[in-house]
Amino acid sequence: MIEIAKKSKEASKLLMKLDHQTRKNILSKMAMGLVERKQDIIEANKLDLAAAKESGLSGSMIDRLKLDGPRIDSMVQGVQAISEQEEVVGTFHGEFTDDKGLKIKRQRIPLGVILMIFESRPNVVVDCAALAIKSSNSIILKGGKEAKHSNEILGEIIQKAIGHYVPKECVQVLASDKREVVSELLELNQFIDVVIPRGGEKLVKFVHENATMPVIAHFQGLCHMYLDKKANLDKALKLVLNAKTQRTGVCNAIETLLVHQDILKEFAPRLTQELMSRGTELRVDKDFMMASGQDLQAATDEDWSTEYLDNILSIKTVKSLDEATSHIDQFGTFHTECIVSEDTSACENFLNSVDASCVMINASSRFNDGGQLGLGAELGISTTKLHAYGPMGAEQMTTTRYVIVGDGHTR
Amino acid sequence: MIEIAKKSKEASKLLMKLDHQTRKNILSKMAMGLVERKQDIIEANKLDLAAAKESGLSGSMIDRLKLDGPRIDSMVQGVQAISEQEEVVGTFHGEFTDDKGLKIKRQRIPLGVILMIFESRPNVVVDCAALAIKSSNSIILKGGKEAKHSNEILGEIIQKAIGHYVPKECVQVLASDKREVVSELLELNQFIDVVIPRGGEKLVKFVHENATMPVIAHFQGLCHMYLDKKANLDKALKLVLNAKTQRTGVCNAIETLLVHQDILKEFAPRLTQELMSRGTELRVDKDFMMASGQDLQAATDEDWSTEYLDNILSIKTVKSLDEATSHIDQFGTFHTECIVSEDTSACENFLNSVDASCVMINASSRFNDGGQLGLGAELGISTTKLHAYGPMGAEQMTTTRYVIVGDGHTR
Repeated sequence: MIEIAKKSKEASKLLMKLDHQTRKNILSKMAMGLVERKQDIIEANKLDLAAAKESGLSGSMIDRLKLDGPRIDSMVQGVQAISEQEEVVGTFHGEFTDDKGLKIKRQRIPLGVILMIFESRPNVVVDCAALAIKSSNSIILKGGKEAKHSNEILGEIIQKAIGHYVPKECVQVLASDKREVVSELLELNQFIDVVIPRGGEKLVKFVHENATMPVIAHFQGLCHMYLDKKANLDKALKLVLNAKTQRTGVCNAIETLLVHQDILKEFAPRLTQELMSRGTELRVDKDFMMASGQDLQAATDEDWSTEYLDNILSIKTVKSLDEATSHIDQFGTFHTECIVSEDTSACENFLNSVDASCVMINASSRFNDGGQLGLGAELGISTTKLHAYGPMGAEQMTTTRYVIVGDGHTR
Repeated sequence: MIEIAKKSKEASKLLMKLDHQTRKNILSKMAMGLVERKQDIIEANKLDLAAAKESGLSGSMIDRLKLDGPRIDSMVQGVQAISEQEEVVGTFHGEFTDDKGLKIKRQRIPLGVILMIFESRPNVVVDCAALAIKSSNSIILKGGKEAKHSNEILGEIIQKAIGHYVPKECVQVLASDKREVVSELLELNQFIDVVIPRGGEKLVKFVHENATMPVIAHFQGLCHMYLDKKANLDKALKLVLNAKTQRTGVCNAIETLLVHQDILKEFAPRLTQELMSRGTELRVDKDFMMASGQDLQAATDEDWSTEYLDNILSIKTVKSLDEATSHIDQFGTFHTECIVSEDTSACENFLNSVDASCVMINASSRFNDGGQLGLGAELGISTTKLHAYGPMGAEQMTTTRYVIVGDGHTR
């Protein structure tokens, strides 16, 4: 592992000296490689899918793992979008000259070496490699064993593309599924500048406890949607269906719906019917059950703190906006929180009361995504407030330093 | 300690709702309190100074501890400068409307509760309290026992001033010198969002090993100045004298001077004489000693890795700019690195090769300071690349979230 980390650090020093055009060339070479070998990627992915089915992974987990033609096309588009973005490293900003004539400016610089530890989705390999090249960082990608074959072939294609311009060790994909590999890497703070665990509680906890370098956690998305008493119910229905069912195995889907008691009677039967017709399993409180007119499963305390990552929704009735934001305060995971209301002061109040990287007003939680918010792709969604809060794109993979130019200036 | 942390968290939630004018009122009340009780502060400080002398603290440590009229005036000016700065929390930026009509914007928000652990300088209490109010963060200030009386009275004055507007627990000064206090606080990540250790190796290491929340270290300043073969020697002399002797107990003073061999013969005797007349103790390599014409103390390997924080300078002769940057790579602490040269390509090369939060070109290292760089005051100088690198002002005590406004928008 020391060799891997050391080579990554050495490679990162060369990356810093690339110009914008070379970085664009590398990214387009990477996109071409993915297009050319689309069929090979699908074949490798089939091996992972077969193993996943055999080991009894859930439907939404298998969905996360799957790479097909359209998903590969979308990865390629992500790489191209990142390539087209403005330069994020080396650039200067905030320049001023002080009263003594000293020129003070700030410069964006890369972080150095990023260790990314993630689970399932193999598209993470491509997104993160492209963002790393864009931001002049070396990256070590440690995926899960369930995506072993997919990650390996993607790593191979990427290294072949970048190897024309920079040391291929700028992007290293580790396929070993041994826990010790991670433990060893977490010791190497002389080479690795930051570690990003993207996954479940066990992974994030392990990294927090063992890392010797700073950690930016990409943790749970236990996201809520609150339907205010002044919600437009047509919009509310569309938003709940989209936020829960458009894709269920993702962190920005909602897990709990909070419904104001005043709209319950009118809205509960309609919502229940629509969700049931989409196969959504409901876990609801007593008031909602009564209003729905259906015999639904009762929610337990555990439901309020569970990120299902599946087509399941818990529903709770609240007496006020304050009760909704208190619930979010207790169970939210600093990810995405939504309000549906036509009352601007209620929206304002919600915004000032919830703590999340992204607050949605009359919009689906599914928009909390680097691609949707203009970042091209994302390293993930940070639930750590420090350094980056929310989707991390290339800019969030940089830091800034001061550059001060004088002519013999002293204090 | 739980009570202290909990109250800090509760207070932070109220702080978020303050408007700009109220924050200004709090800061001016704080400044007034300091002016009114100047004599009391000086008296309290005298107790600390007497104890410090008795316990044999070094001259530069005593200088760090001292509060006199001018230094209190300068603290007050810092508070006023912070008050006059533009609003840093609650403000929006980067707003755009995407092709579906979704309004996307980013908002600066406070971090929440900051725990600051620091040594000696009591002005830190005032600077950090003012920056916390400005940025809507609660702060817990744990100073060293050597500044006990000074910190206590400053905390009392600050709490009295802020108590007119917000819970006084927004700023809490802990005077206890027990290590267990720190250990307990470092466990409380449900209340404390970030810990900032500002001090020596032992403190920073202890915090890194025990903190359960993110750490932004304000560690050593082992700063270098490199005199290039194309240095203007008059400027070089002025810059070395300023960077080493203007104030010696500070992190942005230089500890090691790297001199290009081509200028040694002409420059060494002159520099040696000037430094010796200022009482600077020199630890030099063989080449410099020969060129200086004096019998100086030989530098050992330990000197290159020692932050003296005193009127001592180590000097090393280098054959090239590359040798200088390699030395900095090995011994630098990501703080401040300076080059003196009239050759712009050498300056460029130096800038692209050194890793530091602040790179000075023909300017004194002493300018790496929040006050000098327009931040009013500083929490300290971060040597952690994540989140903030270099001087941390109010803006660096915030993070950003996304606010997305739709009209029933779905993906």
